[in-house]
Amino acid sequence: MSAPAAAKIAAQGTTAARPGEGLGRWQAVGVGVLGATGYGGGELVRLLSMHPGAALRALGSRQHAGATMARVWPSLPDLDLELDDDPSDPAPWVDRGVEVVFSALPHGAFADRAPAFLAAGLRVIDLSADFRLSAVAGVVYGLTEWCGAELEAARLVANPGCYATAVLLAILPAVTGGLWSGAPIIANALSGVSGAGRSPALPTHFVECGNSAAPYRVGEEHAHLREIAAALGRAGQAGPIIFNPHLVPMARGILASISIPLCVPLSLAAAQERYAARYAGAPFVRVLPPGDLPETRHVRGSNRCDLAVRVAAGGSVLLVFSAIDNLLKGAAGQAVQNWNRICGWPETTGLATAGWPCA
Amino acid sequence: MSAPAAAKIAAQGTTAARPGEGLGRWQAVGVGVLGATGYGGGELVRLLSMHPGAALRALGSRQHAGATMARVWPSLPDLDLELDDDPSDPAPWVDRGVEVVFSALPHGAFADRAPAFLAAGLRVIDLSADFRLSAVAGVVYGLTEWCGAELEAARLVANPGCYATAVLLAILPAVTGGLWSGAPIIANALSGVSGAGRSPALPTHFVECGNSAAPYRVGEEHAHLREIAAALGRAGQAGPIIFNPHLVPMARGILASISIPLCVPLSLAAAQERYAARYAGAPFVRVLPPGDLPETRHVRGSNRCDLAVRVAAGGSVLLVFSAIDNLLKGAAGQAVQNWNRICGWPETTGLATAGWPCA
Amino acid sequence: MSAPAAAKIAAQGTTAARPGEGLGRWQAVGVGVLGATGYGGGELVRLLSMHPGAALRALGSRQHAGATMARVWPSLPDLDLELDDDPSDPAPWVDRGVEVVFSALPHGAFADRAPAFLAAGLRVIDLSADFRLSAVAGVVYGLTEWCGAELEAARLVANPGCYATAVLLAILPAVTGGLWSGAPIIANALSGVSGAGRSPALPTHFVECGNSAAPYRVGEEHAHLREIAAALGRAGQAGPIIFNPHLVPMARGILASISIPLCVPLSLAAAQERYAARYAGAPFVRVLPPGDLPETRHVRGSNRCDLAVRVAAGGSVLLVFSAIDNLLKGAAGQAVQNWNRICGWPETTGLATAGWPCA
Amino acid sequence: MSAPAAAKIAAQGTTAARPGEGLGRWQAVGVGVLGATGYGGGELVRLLSMHPGAALRALGSRQHAGATMARVWPSLPDLDLELDDDPSDPAPWVDRGVEVVFSALPHGAFADRAPAFLAAGLRVIDLSADFRLSAVAGVVYGLTEWCGAELEAARLVANPGCYATAVLLAILPAVTGGLWSGAPIIANALSGVSGAGRSPALPTHFVECGNSAAPYRVGEEHAHLREIAAALGRAGQAGPIIFNPHLVPMARGILASISIPLCVPLSLAAAQERYAARYAGAPFVRVLPPGDLPETRHVRGSNRCDLAVRVAAGGSVLLVFSAIDNLLKGAAGQAVQNWNRICGWPETTGLATAGWPCA
Repeated sequence: MSAPAAAKIAAQGTTAARPGEGLGRWQAVGVGVLGATGYGGGELVRLLSMHPGAALRALGSRQHAGATMARVWPSLPDLDLELDDDPSDPAPWVDRGVEVVFSALPHGAFADRAPAFLAAGLRVIDLSADFRLSAVAGVVYGLTEWCGAELEAARLVANPGCYATAVLLAILPAVTGGLWSGAPIIANALSGVSGAGRSPALPTHFVECGNSAAPYRVGEEHAHLREIAAALGRAGQAGPIIFNPHLVPMARGILASISIPLCVPLSLAAAQERYAARYAGAPFVRVLPPGDLPETRHVRGSNRCDLAVRVAAGGSVLLVFSAIDNLLKGAAGQAVQNWNRICGWPETTGLATAGWPCA
Repeated sequence: MSAPAAAKIAAQGTTAARPGEGLGRWQAVGVGVLGATGYGGGELVRLLSMHPGAALRALGSRQHAGATMARVWPSLPDLDLELDDDPSDPAPWVDRGVEVVFSALPHGAFADRAPAFLAAGLRVIDLSADFRLSAVAGVVYGLTEWCGAELEAARLVANPGCYATAVLLAILPAVTGGLWSGAPIIANALSGVSGAGRSPALPTHFVECGNSAAPYRVGEEHAHLREIAAALGRAGQAGPIIFNPHLVPMARGILASISIPLCVPLSLAAAQERYAARYAGAPFVRVLPPGDLPETRHVRGSNRCDLAVRVAAGGSVLLVFSAIDNLLKGAAGQAVQNWNRICGWPETTGLATAGWPCA
Repeated sequence: MSAPAAAKIAAQGTTAARPGEGLGRWQAVGVGVLGATGYGGGELVRLLSMHPGAALRALGSRQHAGATMARVWPSLPDLDLELDDDPSDPAPWVDRGVEVVFSALPHGAFADRAPAFLAAGLRVIDLSADFRLSAVAGVVYGLTEWCGAELEAARLVANPGCYATAVLLAILPAVTGGLWSGAPIIANALSGVSGAGRSPALPTHFVECGNSAAPYRVGEEHAHLREIAAALGRAGQAGPIIFNPHLVPMARGILASISIPLCVPLSLAAAQERYAARYAGAPFVRVLPPGDLPETRHVRGSNRCDLAVRVAAGGSVLLVFSAIDNLLKGAAGQAVQNWNRICGWPETTGLATAGWPCA
Repeated sequence: MSAPAAAKIAAQGTTAARPGEGLGRWQAVGVGVLGATGYGGGELVRLLSMHPGAALRALGSRQHAGATMARVWPSLPDLDLELDDDPSDPAPWVDRGVEVVFSALPHGAFADRAPAFLAAGLRVIDLSADFRLSAVAGVVYGLTEWCGAELEAARLVANPGCYATAVLLAILPAVTGGLWSGAPIIANALSGVSGAGRSPALPTHFVECGNSAAPYRVGEEHAHLREIAAALGRAGQAGPIIFNPHLVPMARGILASISIPLCVPLSLAAAQERYAARYAGAPFVRVLPPGDLPETRHVRGSNRCDLAVRVAAGGSVLLVFSAIDNLLKGAAGQAVQNWNRICGWPETTGLATAGWPCA
């Protein structure tokens, strides 16, 4: 273990939430996960099973109720917890000691359950789109690096979508800095196939997508565009954004390539400096040194977002390139990051900045 | 064989260049290929070996001289022609009956050879970048659908690059139609790994690139940008173009996603109509019906370019999506298409509009 | 076109079945395809659309009835024939001039239709398993290289399965030559994912299978084992065969690695000689030179089977390695090959010995 | 974190080697890694950087000396340790506090260095083949589950090869139990491309291997066969083994499919029981329940070996299927597992039984 890494872990140890029982200095919080057997849910359970502050108490799966998690995910052979049918009534989970619920249900499936879960006093982190456009009190849009103190007080965290995370982390330092001219931002993005979920369908059948690249819902059609616009609105910005997502044959990862028209020409050094300054304290956002560009393999398996900036057209256009692991910083990882912040733990607890070098 | 296909082949049969000998109504032309063992060269040889107008007389390969083509490309077991070291002096090839030379040598390697080959009376089709920016008489930039009668008279055809082909076919109908506002065109493009050539290198090592997406030489850095700008210049157009190429894990294919700022708002119907009209007579360019988008798998193995148009930002931005097989319409296929035109044969001779449905 | 290739095609031209009309010297036969929109069916249609003896008159698809083939397979944009619901009554197809029917329906779906189609006087080539174990008169198991004159007279050809083709071509020269000791033959085989068909399912979802290798139905569980045993039986051989199929992340191809215990030790030269002699006249079976081994990429897109032999354990075990394209020699290609034989055309008509060098 | 996992980690905490300094109850041991920038070395460094007992003090790389590890492996951005040229003289590393050296140098490169490193008092774990056939005192072949007390006393651990690990774990329970008839064992194995190392070469170029399966060095040609035979010899067994390795397009993983001829017929239940009993106490070997088969994706990212057994040919042949991650249980993971045993730490310290569910 390197010295900085050791320092980090040591730091984590001393910041543990509540002393008394648990893993050494940690007292574990009882956790339940709805929708535990999809890709986002599986990653959540994997992360939480290694998180020193989490005690997995209940897992839900409509499709696999009655089986163990290990049976559904043979990669996780020690997870012998039996899957419940995703509950609508939280009482049985509360009885089993669940204090916080992560929902990785499909879009639309948690909205109706939310009131009961909140009424039962549970803290909720929802990975679906159901509350991302919500303006209800106590609901916080959890783009961690752009959340303030409201995150710690959130009753329900609406965890951002994967595309929105990659795009917003890339454009917010520019647009909130008054650099954007208001002409259309063009955001092209490439997604790994796990972004389409675990339900088999022809477009994600290996033989169809395994050796091909395909745009889909381009221009102004994709649901994440509304999420991006809403987040810009909260930041006091508005203007046209064109968003072209593409499916490419990799399991994980999002790569966004974005052009932002500027109101005044910007030098590369100034752009680099602005981004580096904005994310100086963020453990999971890395502004790459000039000349480098992000690649999805470099963030695969980590909760990082790698960013690079360029200027073009005589400094009148800012280019930003952004890479995340769609299942981690784009879903389960950011959910845990938000939870760490809520609990007052170090933001990196149970999360890797290192990725899987080859996978 | 479908009726239209049969009609096409019948048509080909009756248009054969010179009667007398050869395959039925065809008299074959003696062909030599320089750089025959790279991906572009291999595809060329494969196409020419099935072309009714081609008699393969000589193949060159610096690296594999002395071996047979079949030995280097076990997929082509009937090609027992022995590889020569790529010649600088065309005389021995002329003696063997070579009348036309296709060069698939690396960039920079044919420029010095060209004078001797032309002086020997050979017609030349060069797949490298060496002559794409040239203004010498007799040299024609061979973007087939945009060439006029000068192609038939060309002594040397500079065959376009794969990225340039995908981008130019997508933008020319708009920019030559006076639609472009002059604000930056943003062209994002995804390339299969064969676009990087056959020389092993770390970025194209399977373990590195096989599950990842990576931008490279973005903004204004890629050599194809000069080629695109030069082609625009010949069309009387100039203006900023930002070009962001990406490597994605597929063997073949280019997908370009392009935004063109317009001087006046355009409806989708008008955009669709303009593109359909421009390519109405082009056997290898297909403007997709509204709602469809191109995918590289649909053109894999064919010489087609599939195009789709969209409008966004209130009609002020035209989006064009373009897919080609980088080794065919982006290299060897377009070379044969150009040669067909030069010889006065049907443009489709020896080329497929159908692709490989799954590969 | 190389001289041998030209000779081949010229030969084809002069052997055309019936003069009079059609493509030059060819008179096309009216063809219908049931199950045209799966992978096997799609390949069949692609091959037949380029076959000089075939006039596609009718295509069936339960799932896509009413759409055009081009709509379902955008790779084949010229195929504007509309899909029928797969008929049970052949009369309408007969009225449209269908003379031969290829069935690429799923296993079990053609058996009930067969009597009506045969009663209507149609020649039938069935790609399913329905008749592979049949001993009915007029039904021929169509492993082309091992069929005799009975193939030409067949009313129904039961086209072999992909695994069975790869294994039988590899073992028959040894077992029919009296070399097999009778101890278990071990056949391991790797299949591309298209072998599992086009219906989406979790095991063939990109994210699940795209980066992994998995055995399935190993030992004595796979249905193809009965087909192999039946074929051995027809060749007068019996004995234990252990068959271990595996799914690996490639679109196409089967690679079989087989060990055959021998009754007397054999030298490599003798093994090589036996195999080369057996397949000397077979245009689609290539016994590789000593030292080489088959790879699926070398046969991808071709109708070839590449074979290599080795001896081990002091000459007491013969190893045979076999590669085919599962959709061509393992399905649609062999179906066309059988049809060529039935029609008296050159076996190679409309079929490639060359493959796709990179795909 | 699940209760069993928590118990495991708690157990680890209390078994730390030496109290006093370090991470809580752990005192870290100074570690150096030779050949740190290949795939095996990279995985080693990644594992050790998260290992509570390891303090990374020195990393070597001939090719990248002077760069930081983070520069060579952007997935590991916190590893700012500078790479040395791989030293032949251990003195400078000893001065920096290195107490144990892991060598991931290519085969042949460590043999000459070993005497100096051992003479300097360093404990050595060598991932290359250099000492796997050695009978020198103090050298132990580190197939962990089959090592006894000699492992703890080893001065140099010869870490097994990836193929040998997968095959030996699969066959040793049968052959050491007197079940093997002595007729040839047939071991077919599939390897991910990372098994071929990180040096670019044509066979591992994406376009060549990315969609294909290929056998290589089959029969009795592969170097791992000698390693397997030597290990059998140490277990008092001898007999013919035929080993057919194949390259398949996945980044990681080995899947071995093995047939063992038996001297007396065995029931499936008896086979299952024998294997389950042999590995009952092994945290990283999982004998799957009857009916299941291992897949490489289930062990990807973990140090596990998953095994399944079948009987065939009337009980006369035992089939064993084995899956490992070639870079972990087949290389870096087993190296750490051996080191844990040497240090008296729990065998699972710093190693995952859980894998990456999708990657």
